[in-house]
Formats: sequence, structure tokens, C-alpha cells
Amino acid sequence: MAQPWNPPPSADHRDRRDRLRELVAGTADVLVVSDLINVRYLTGFTGSNAAVLISAADPDADRISTDGRYITQVAEQSGDLEAVIARNCLAALVEHAGQGGTVRVGFEEHIVTVAAHRDLDGDLVGTSGLVETLREVKDPGEVELLRRACVVADEALAAIIERGLLAPGRTEREVARALEWEMFERGADAVSFETIVATGANSAIPHHRPTPAVLATGDFVKIDFGAAVAGYHSDMTRTYVLSRAADWQREIYELVATAQAAGRAALTPDADLRGVDAAARSVIDDAGYGDKYVHGLGHGIGLQIHEAPGIGSAATGTLPCGAAVTVEPGVYLPGRGGVRIEDSLVVTDGEPDLLTTTDKTFTVI
Amino acid sequence: MAQPWNPPPSADHRDRRDRLRELVAGTADVLVVSDLINVRYLTGFTGSNAAVLISAADPDADRISTDGRYITQVAEQSGDLEAVIARNCLAALVEHAGQGGTVRVGFEEHIVTVAAHRDLDGDLVGTSGLVETLREVKDPGEVELLRRACVVADEALAAIIERGLLAPGRTEREVARALEWEMFERGADAVSFETIVATGANSAIPHHRPTPAVLATGDFVKIDFGAAVAGYHSDMTRTYVLSRAADWQREIYELVATAQAAGRAALTPDADLRGVDAAARSVIDDAGYGDKYVHGLGHGIGLQIHEAPGIGSAATGTLPCGAAVTVEPGVYLPGRGGVRIEDSLVVTDGEPDLLTTTDKTFTVI
Repeated sequence: MAQPWNPPPSADHRDRRDRLRELVAGTADVLVVSDLINVRYLTGFTGSNAAVLISAADPDADRISTDGRYITQVAEQSGDLEAVIARNCLAALVEHAGQGGTVRVGFEEHIVTVAAHRDLDGDLVGTSGLVETLREVKDPGEVELLRRACVVADEALAAIIERGLLAPGRTEREVARALEWEMFERGADAVSFETIVATGANSAIPHHRPTPAVLATGDFVKIDFGAAVAGYHSDMTRTYVLSRAADWQREIYELVATAQAAGRAALTPDADLRGVDAAARSVIDDAGYGDKYVHGLGHGIGLQIHEAPGIGSAATGTLPCGAAVTVEPGVYLPGRGGVRIEDSLVVTDGEPDLLTTTDKTFTVI
Repeated sequence: MAQPWNPPPSADHRDRRDRLRELVAGTADVLVVSDLINVRYLTGFTGSNAAVLISAADPDADRISTDGRYITQVAEQSGDLEAVIARNCLAALVEHAGQGGTVRVGFEEHIVTVAAHRDLDGDLVGTSGLVETLREVKDPGEVELLRRACVVADEALAAIIERGLLAPGRTEREVARALEWEMFERGADAVSFETIVATGANSAIPHHRPTPAVLATGDFVKIDFGAAVAGYHSDMTRTYVLSRAADWQREIYELVATAQAAGRAALTPDADLRGVDAAARSVIDDAGYGDKYVHGLGHGIGLQIHEAPGIGSAATGTLPCGAAVTVEPGVYLPGRGGVRIEDSLVVTDGEPDLLTTTDKTFTVI
């Protein structure tokens, strides 16, 4: 069984704020962060209304804001920060920043709406993606939570296979619900996203939603799912064949497995993101199935199930050491079936750290 | 068992666009709607990237935009609208609007970010809450989906009671997971929100998350939960006592039940929202428990679990006929326990239409 998790220590949050402080310094005197995921990353606070002020010069001037419903919670989760209690947290912190005289106040222009911006008063500076860039590189506490989320998913899948639920006669929905149940039993707070169980021809639909369709002998069954643990999301796909396999199934499975291995091997620090995508895609292209692989290779995972960096043929930039990403090529043959194989991994100076450890050799169940 | 649902006919979406068209006419030549819930309301489209253009003058000039991943889906769900395929749907439709000459283009200023706005080109007019105002009044197709979502929740709760799961020795988490399972079995697409099961002193925490806490004899057990069916969200709370009840439990239960009945009775067309809140709150105030009732009376439900109108002591405006709302007063005694009783209802010209029909007389289980 997965062990119970502990929230990351507040020292981690302080470190993150200090890293952000360096980015703010070149741009503004303070930055007010109002995206709730970014607030959680910087403070540990999980309430539904909040903002945080980061001072470029003075850590003691950092503030968190939330409303009266969360007075107890903010003291528990973010007791190292002085709280400004207000309904409009963004406006309250912008106003707070201005109280000491004229300051340049950074805000998240990719988050703040036109209407909210109009209500702000001060010398405002738009910033974009500062916290999201920090979030690309996971600290050890985050890697540990991602690993636990992946263990929950690995164990849940093993449990439904052991219980004989991946078998002809079951429905996609039954399998999905059972898998989710097993994740909750193992300490998942939530599912990472709506569990995908796709059997037979449905497996050729990349993001099929579970239906009452019945699993049948000879079907591909594609299962794409994840657990959220302490806010961190795992993501894994496995594809099996039920009872007996045809040659075309073995063939496309092995092709996708080879491409996936190539994608994993390309996860090196500072690798070009398009190059990582190409490492896997070229395998599938060369086999003549390029037009049956209709999506990108992967994406970052963390406090969100999809976050930076995206790994695809139109990506820009490079892969930082410490990024947590998925590698998930697929081949989809409409009307027949499809295969996707996906792992979650962390980029390191050596081999990538494989977080999802469920076997992925071709398996007839 | 709840019957399977059918998506509302596209005629409903056309009617909604026509109602919006009248609101646009006074403000701009076209309105580009980019909030995804609003897009779904106006078109039926459920993809993760979309916008819709509403022409003030010409229904045939209406357009939907989404990206290449959704070409099949947009044709299936919104085939009566011509689609503009683009990655940045908002910008594409604003540009499309300008192609016929200079037009005033409305946008949703409470949705569009500062960064997205800067990328738009044209004679832009900020609008706020136009679609949300329409969404307050449910059409018959929407009421039917809300009713089905409420039936799923009613039946699921009855099932876990019949299965003997609301009993000393079970954990909050077990009860929550079982309740969710029963909703999925009955056709819920999703839960409306994280199911609340709170036993004993935990029931005094308004939004407690289920824990491994064990239900015990003499506990209040408060259960707040809902099912989403075809995108429409039910919301219901019931509070029971396990095995044997104390006098103080009967007393605060009857108080909350009386307040809840008063709140339901106040749901009349054009009622002042603060007056509806006061109808229930005054009952609790008069009994001396006013400081133990720490939230508003209710909120709208529909494509979102919380939408307009909010019913609280600081609300403004009135209750339109056809609004779907919750009525959910509570009394919370820290360290001892709490009671909340909540229904989902639709405001009509006569009695409000009660969608959640689970019995709410004081019950010892």
C-alpha cells in the first residue's frame, strides 16, 4: 500500500518565493500572484480565493490574502506569511503594495481579466508565466509527491487486473469506476482527470470517455488514468489485448513501444523539446504510421495535469533538468483499435527517473 | 433507476442565441463569447477550446470556432453553426468579425485576460455577464436535466442507506466513495463537487473533506453531494443522527428544518434576494443561533455548481421566475456537531418545483 503523504514543509514554499523574488527583481518592486495554483505552489494554501504578494527586496514584506472563510485554514497552511483578509484579494494586495509609496506592481497578465485589471489602482506592470517557469523544475518534495501519486496508480491498476476485472464481459464504465475506487482506497485525493477505458474500436479514439461498451475477446483495451495526491497528478496509459492477440495488434504495439522508449531516452537536460518529440515520432513515421499518431508526445505534470513544458512538433524551448513530463506516443487505426503507452518521468542528469513502473511489455490478459 | 438522458435539441441552443442577440443589439454589432461554459450553453459544444460569435442583426452570421482536434465533434454537437477552425478561437472570431468592415466587437471583459485582450485587433467593447444573466432562467430542457441529476442523487443516497452503509463503524471516506459509486452507476457523468461526509464534531465544519474518521453512535452525519448529468449539477444536503439522538440534536435539526422551509416558501418570482435569505436567517437569528449560521442561504445551479443568482445577506437584485437555486441553511456548533438541510428547486409562478425529493424529517438511522 502507498504510504500516507505529508504536505511539503513550509521551507519549500519559502525557497520557491525566494527563487521567484529573483525573477521579480528585474521587472517590478513587487509581484502580486493571483492564479490559485501558483498561490498554492508559493504558499501551500489551498482555499478557493487567494493572492500572494512577493516583494523583490524584502522577504518580510511578502503577504498572503484570502477572505474571512479561510482565517483558520490560512494560519494552518501558510502561517509563516502575514495575511491580509479581503474579499478581492488581488485588489487588496495591490492596494497594500501602494501604501508604502509609489511602487511598480507586477501582475499576471495571462491570468488577470480585463475587468479585474480595471479595478486595480497603481503603477501596474504586466508579467507572464514567471511562476509557471519556476514550476517546470520540480523540487525534491514535489518529486516525492508525484512518485506517490504514480505508486497509487500502479497499485490500483495491478489490483483490478488481479481482481479479474480486465476481462471480456465487463464494461468500460465498470473498469473505470473500479480503477478509480482502487485509487481512492490507496489515498488518492482525486482522480487526475476523467479515467479513460476504451475497448475494441473505441481504443482508436485518443480521448474516449467510458461507455457501457462491453470488453470482448481480441479487443485492445486502452487505459489512461491518474491519481492526485496532495495536489500532484500522475498520468499513465497502458494498452492490453484481451484473451488472444492478432498479428496487427502485436505489430502496432511493438511499434508504439519502440517509439515510447526512444522518447524516454531523449529526455536529457536542455534537450530541444521538438527534438524529443521527433525522437519518438520518427520511429512511427518511418514505419508508415505517421498519420495515425495525431497528438504531441507529452506534457509537464505537477499541480496541474497539463502544465509546462509541452513536448510536441510545434513546441519551442528546451527541457530543464528536474522537469516532470509524460511520454505518450500512440497509433490509432480508426474502426479497428489503437495503442498508447505512457509513462510519467523526471528529467535528471543521468537516466530519467521513471515514476510509473507498471510493466509495458506486450501483454495478453 | 434514472433514465438515460438525451442532449437538449439544437433548437434550444438557437433560442438561447436569439435571446442573447437581443441583449447584444444595444451594445455592439457582434459579441464574441469565449467562456467555455457560456459557449456550451449557446451551442452544445463541449470541447476544451472554443468561442462563439453572435451577430446582433443576422443569425446566419453566427459562427463557432474551435481547433483541429475537434472538427468531428463540433460537426456533431453544433452542426447548425459554421465553424472557424483556429487555435486562438477568440482572436480568430474577432478577426472574422472585422472582415466585413468596421464593426463594434463585444467581448467578455470578466473572462478575457489582459494578455489575450492585447492580442485582439478591432473596435472592442467590454461586456459583462450577458450570457450569465440568460443562464439564470432555465429553459424546460435544462430543468429536465437538473431533475435527472437530482433523481440520480436521491436514488444513490437511498441505495447507501438501504445497503446499511450509514452506520457506526464505517468511515467518512467509505461512505463518500460508496455514494459516488452509486451515482456513477445511475448515469452520473461526474460528481458535482467533492462529496462531503462529515460525522460527529466534523459535521460542525461547513465544508469538511471526508477523512478516515469513523462514524459513531450518537453522531450527526452530514452529507452534501451532487451528480452531474449532461453537464447539469444537482446539489443536496441531508443530516442524520446515528442510532440514538440527544435533545440538543433534535432541537437544532428542527430549527434548521423550519428555517429551510421558510427559505423555500420565499422562492417567489421577483423576490428580493436579500429578502429570501432573511426569510430563513431570521428563524435562526430569533432562536439565538445567528452566529452559528456562517454562510449564505443558497446559489444558482446549472452548467456550473455555483452560478447566479447568489442568495445571501449581501446579495443584490431579484429572483427571476425559472431560476434553479439551492436553499441550504445550517447551524454549526464547533466541537459538537452541525446540521445543514439543502434542496435544489426551480422558481415557478406557483409553488417552487422541488427537484431533490429525499425525505428531510428528523431521522435516526
